[in-house]
This record gives sequence, structure tokens and C-alpha cells, in this order.
Amino acid sequence: MNTLKTIITKQAQAAKNTLPELRRLNTDTKNQALHAMADILIKHSEEILTANAQDLTDLPHTRPNANQALKNRLILTKEKITAIAASLRAIAALPDPVGEILGLKTRPNGLRIGKMRTPMGVLCCIYESRPNVTADIAGLALKSGNACILRGGRESIHSNTTIARILKQAIQNTGVNPDYLQMIEQTGREGVTILAQLDQYIDLIIPRGGEKLIDVVSQHAKMPVLKHRKGICHLYADADANHKKAIDIIVNAKAQNPSTCNSLEKALIHEKIADTLLPELVRALTQANVEVRGCERTQKITPSVTPATDADWSTEYLDLKITLKIVKNFDEAVKHIEKYGTGLADGIITENYTTAGAFLQTIDSANVFVNASTRFADGFEYGLGAEVGISTAKIHGRGPMGLEDLTVTKYIVLGNGQTRK
Amino acid sequence: MNTLKTIITKQAQAAKNTLPELRRLNTDTKNQALHAMADILIKHSEEILTANAQDLTDLPHTRPNANQALKNRLILTKEKITAIAASLRAIAALPDPVGEILGLKTRPNGLRIGKMRTPMGVLCCIYESRPNVTADIAGLALKSGNACILRGGRESIHSNTTIARILKQAIQNTGVNPDYLQMIEQTGREGVTILAQLDQYIDLIIPRGGEKLIDVVSQHAKMPVLKHRKGICHLYADADANHKKAIDIIVNAKAQNPSTCNSLEKALIHEKIADTLLPELVRALTQANVEVRGCERTQKITPSVTPATDADWSTEYLDLKITLKIVKNFDEAVKHIEKYGTGLADGIITENYTTAGAFLQTIDSANVFVNASTRFADGFEYGLGAEVGISTAKIHGRGPMGLEDLTVTKYIVLGNGQTRK
Repeated sequence: MNTLKTIITKQAQAAKNTLPELRRLNTDTKNQALHAMADILIKHSEEILTANAQDLTDLPHTRPNANQALKNRLILTKEKITAIAASLRAIAALPDPVGEILGLKTRPNGLRIGKMRTPMGVLCCIYESRPNVTADIAGLALKSGNACILRGGRESIHSNTTIARILKQAIQNTGVNPDYLQMIEQTGREGVTILAQLDQYIDLIIPRGGEKLIDVVSQHAKMPVLKHRKGICHLYADADANHKKAIDIIVNAKAQNPSTCNSLEKALIHEKIADTLLPELVRALTQANVEVRGCERTQKITPSVTPATDADWSTEYLDLKITLKIVKNFDEAVKHIEKYGTGLADGIITENYTTAGAFLQTIDSANVFVNASTRFADGFEYGLGAEVGISTAKIHGRGPMGLEDLTVTKYIVLGNGQTRK
Repeated sequence: MNTLKTIITKQAQAAKNTLPELRRLNTDTKNQALHAMADILIKHSEEILTANAQDLTDLPHTRPNANQALKNRLILTKEKITAIAASLRAIAALPDPVGEILGLKTRPNGLRIGKMRTPMGVLCCIYESRPNVTADIAGLALKSGNACILRGGRESIHSNTTIARILKQAIQNTGVNPDYLQMIEQTGREGVTILAQLDQYIDLIIPRGGEKLIDVVSQHAKMPVLKHRKGICHLYADADANHKKAIDIIVNAKAQNPSTCNSLEKALIHEKIADTLLPELVRALTQANVEVRGCERTQKITPSVTPATDADWSTEYLDLKITLKIVKNFDEAVKHIEKYGTGLADGIITENYTTAGAFLQTIDSANVFVNASTRFADGFEYGLGAEVGISTAKIHGRGPMGLEDLTVTKYIVLGNGQTRK
């Protein structure tokens, strides 16, 4: 066994060893630890900013092709550290999911049977650039009674290791075993493949990053992987859409932060409202600096749009670009989303009760919207405090993974001496 | 592409193509189809029994080492077919999980956000001997809006294909596309590895059978696998146990059907009650034809027990054998279960409220019992109508997988024009 594998295996073992203690922690103890973590981040913010400055200095070496967006995600400020601490306090304020009992029912023989939420075990999160993820996941894991192994990117190694070290220091006297949090300090790709094979210790692996990272993890992982790939998000403006809402929502979903996975990439317009909606929509998008492409029918109504090619329907721009399509009806919109959507976030704009209900039932995406911007598909916006990632897997819970989705249910059976006949 | 792969891939594709229709089926349509399936099984029971007789005739060739237990599982009777039909009607009578909305809450900006249950997609179940599984899974899949691919064992191929053909015939005029149900007629191991790699079409694979089958599926599967391996089930008779309940429950859990995964394998006895409980317990077990083994301390109190070896603690007997151990306290019992348990079903016998609560919180098993026999760990006993299998995975829902665990939640976001700031 080589040295790297030995180090990482020992860390994974240490994380797993804390599970019996973690399952038994009471909520007060966990919340006190979360507040201690928030306090220490504020108290040591100079130290964190110094480490972050080092990461920024090293950036030309660690990520020679880093763009401004990556730099924005990497950089920390006093304000950002305050926000990270606030997020930990928000997690403390949320109800503890562990021990919640669901659907307890009495059977004819008097057995009471229900499901109880329990921690999953050891989570491993592999992520890039944003150092706030370190504290977010440490906080969510603790509150949900899970151990966590964190492996950030090489571009944020100083920030991440400093934050993790300080957080572990904060909980030393709170009754929480600091070993529950393990930061992998080796940022080479080899570490990722080692982690992916430690199914003896790791129960769930969550890659958050580019498609290459997700491919490497999925290919090697021996444990379940929760992830999402591309976010080709759609909004469908139905025949009964309110035009002002349609324009506001489409422009917001596209332009408010186009580099995020939940930003809009395609809008589908019902043919009945295309003549009146399109000119105004294209004008509003153009004013927001969005490059607008369109299908043939769109081009006829608003000739200023760039003709769309086949490739446009399956391209995630992550940029100020959008493609519009006129559809004949609800069914054509649904079929288009089923064909080109990636199951992350899709929505409808309509005032029609029945159409809205049919869309909610039919669309098989992790987040389905009615009359709201897809940009809300986010753990913090959902009131989850934070998220460890967004899942579009077909099992477990889909969407932003907060406290609840970091637990699993077990059956509990409460008897009075019952035996089986 | 060889012929077998072509055939199986086409079946998987056909199953997947029915998903958009399945998601939109209303509950009445699904229930009518389930009743039509139950009716036709009764009507065609002679045909099914003839096919089953063929399987029994072929058994010396298909399973030269078949024991009586396998034969019992394989054999069908009029009564068993009536029970299969009743199970389909029971599934029809259960609430439809699809579309259920959980935890809908209003955010400060007026967005209403909750989770909606939606079908998982295409399930693939690989199982052995029991032909009733064919109808159980066909029924559970339909009610939960999933397509299913079934691959039974070679020893039950005539029974399985006959049942599947008849069920598909039953739903031809009910509005359910019969393609949702695909029976794989090739029972070689090669078919299993082909299925395990069709992650393009199959969302979840469930192996139900021996460890070899589970190993093959786990090794090759590109999609999530839900399964359980061994069932080393424990009951812990606490210091505050009612002795009569302890004896009744331990004897029932061990002897009522020892060949099942939820039957008891080890009993842990608190030292405070060992002197009084053990003699009576050993007598009751012996009367039930159970071979009793015991730790050193057990041997001192009841010298008739066979001395236990280290191997006993990690052996699943699936037979009329049990091993008893005296423990010092709750913590030792929990540690023993954490070390040797397989996470399937473990329970406590106690009249103490606090101890019962601590056991429920601490034990990380798919089914945790208080004062009841572990033999109840079963979908039918839980009121789920039937089960597609029992999962001890760390994600999704653990325990017997019924309708609810064949769905996944998606977030729904109901707005009124909200945009993100």
C-alpha cells in the first residue's frame, strides 16, 4: 500500500469510527458545536484571509487557465466569512432530522410500525474552488449526525485546510469528536480514485464540480454517487401565461447569474402567445445583454434573433445566451423537455390551474417550478440552510441535498410481545 | 452486438419508453389494471399450475442440488395463486404514492416549496425460485408508476413466463401499456451481466437471492443496487425484560421459519436476568428443536448448551440453531450488534422506556424492534401489500421496499412571479 493510500485510508477509518458516537449526540450538543464553529470563524477571520490570499497568489500556478468566475468563487472577504458563520447558525436553528418518526401506524395485531430518520454514515464530498463549501458541509454533516471527508481543489487548499483546522479546534470541548471531520490535504487526482474505492468506510460520495471530475468519480466509485451533470434548464410559457410574469421570470432565470447550473438555457413559448410575447421578451433579454437565438418560427416573428442550430438544444451555455422555441402545445413542450432536459430544474409559466398541475406531475426533474425563476433551485433559497450538492439521481431524494436528504429512514417496530403466526 | 444483448437491450428500451405514460396514469386506471391482473390469475390458474408442474419436472436438471426448501418456494397451488391475486388486490387498495406532496412550506418571499413523490423509472429485479415474486413486483411497479424488468431463475422459468404473459394480456384494454412489464426469458448468468450494464435504460437493480448472485450484480452494476446480504439478526433481552415476552419472542423469531433472512440468529442476555431467564429459555428453545450454543458464562448457568466458537457470532445459520451470549450491560449489547450485525433486523426486549428509546436511536439497522419478533420484518407484515426486496443500503429507504420506496421525491416550487434578487 503506498503512502497516499495509507494516509487517506486512515482518515476514512477515523471518520467511520466516530459514527456510533455521532448517532447518539443530542441536538443541543450539536447546536452548541455549530455555534462554536461560527464563533471561531469570525474570531480567526484574519488567519483565514491570510490563507486565502496565499491561494490567490498561487492561482497562476494551481489553475493557469482560471477565469474571473473561478477567482470570484475562490476569494474570501470579511463579509463572506460572516455569511459562512451565519450559515452555520442557520443550520443550528433548523430542526434536527435525526430521530424524526414518519408515518407511525398501528397494524391489526397492535404493532406500531413507522420509519425513523437516522444518519447515513460517512459522506465524502469532492469539490472545487469555493472555500465556503468546507464549512457548509462540515455543518450539515454534524447536524445530520454524519461523519464527513472533504477533498477540495488545489486552488483553495490553504483556505480549506485552515477552515477545517479551525473548525476542529472549535469543537474540541463541545462533546463532538473532531475526527468526524476529515480534510484530505492531498489534492492530486490519485486521491480521488483512492477515496472512490473506500466503500468499506465511505457510504456516499458527492462530486461537485466539472464533468471531468464527475466522470472520474462515477467511473471508480464502489459506493453510491449523488451528483448532477449539466443543467439544461427550461421554462415553458404556456398559452395562459401572464406576460409580465413570463418576461420577468425568463429574464431573471437567464441573466441574474448565468454561470450557475440552475440558470435558464432554453425557453419554450406556446404558439398562441408567441406573436404578442416574443417581441417584448426578446427586447427585455437583449437589454439584459443576453444573446438570443431562436427556432425558425421565432425568427419569423422576431427577425433580430440568431438562427438556432440543432446543437443549441443540448448545449448548456452557462453564459448570457438563450435559445427560444415556439411549441404547438403542452405536449410538445413536455416532449422537448423530456428529450433535451437534464432533469435539474424546469418550470412552467401559466395561470391555468389544470395545466400547472399536469406539468408538476409530468416533468421528471429534481426541481419543478410554477411561475418562479429556476434560479431558486438552491438549498439556501429552499430554507435548507445550505446544501451538500444537488442530486438528479433516480434514487434517494432529488434536488438540493440538505439535512433531511443526509439521513436515511429505518423501520421501527414497537410491540408488546407480538410473535408471528 | 450479440443476439442476447440485442434482445435484452430492446426489452429494456421498450420498458423505458413507457415511462412518460406511466407517470401520467391516474390511480383509478392503475387500480383497475391491478384487479384485472388478479382476476386473470384466478381464471388461468390451471395454465399456471401446468407450467409450474413443468418446472418441478425439470428441477433435477435445472437445480440438481435443490433442497426441500427451494422446492417449497417453487411449488404453486390453487391456494398460493389465490394469495398472489389477493396481494395484487391489496396493492390496489393501498394509497397511490405518486403525487403525494410532503412538507410544503411557505418561504418569506411567498414561494411554496415541498417535495412530491414521483416514480423512479425502470426497475430491474433479479430473483430466484418463488414465482409469486413475478406478480408482486409487477403489481408494486405498476401502482408506483415504474416500469419493471424481471429476470427469474431457470428453475421457475415456465411459471414466471406464463404468469408474466397472462398479466400482460390482462391489462391490454385497461389503458396501461403492457410493455411496462418485461420478462427476460434467458436465464443464463450472461443475461445478468448484460442487464447490470444497461444504466442507460435501467435506474435501479435489485438482486434477490444468494450471495453469489448479489456479488455478480454488485460487481457489474453501473446503476444503483439495492440489496441485503446476510441477515444475522439479534435480540437483546435487557435487565428490564419481561421474561415471558423474552422467551416467546426469542423462540418465535428463531423457530417460526428459520430459513428466512429475518429469523433470529443470536440472543444477548443481560447478566442481571441470566440466572433466572436462561434455564427456562434454553428449555423452550430445545423443545422447539433448536440446537442451542452459548458463551462461557451461558455454559456455566445452563451446562446443556454447546460451547460457542468465535465463528458462531458471524455465522448465519438459516437453520434451527442459535447462539446465546451474556452481556454486562446495554453498551456491550450495542457494541456486539454493531460488530457482528448485518444491519437487517435487530431488537430489544425491555419494559424500560428510556432503554427502549436509546436502542431505537442507536442501532443502525434497517428494521429495529422493541418487544416483537424479528420475523415481522417483511413488507406484507408491515402492511405494504408486498415488497420488491429488503434494502440495507445506506441511501434511499432501508427495510422492506414497498410502494413508497419505489418512488423518489422531487422538489416542487409554486410561485406567483417570484424572481431572485
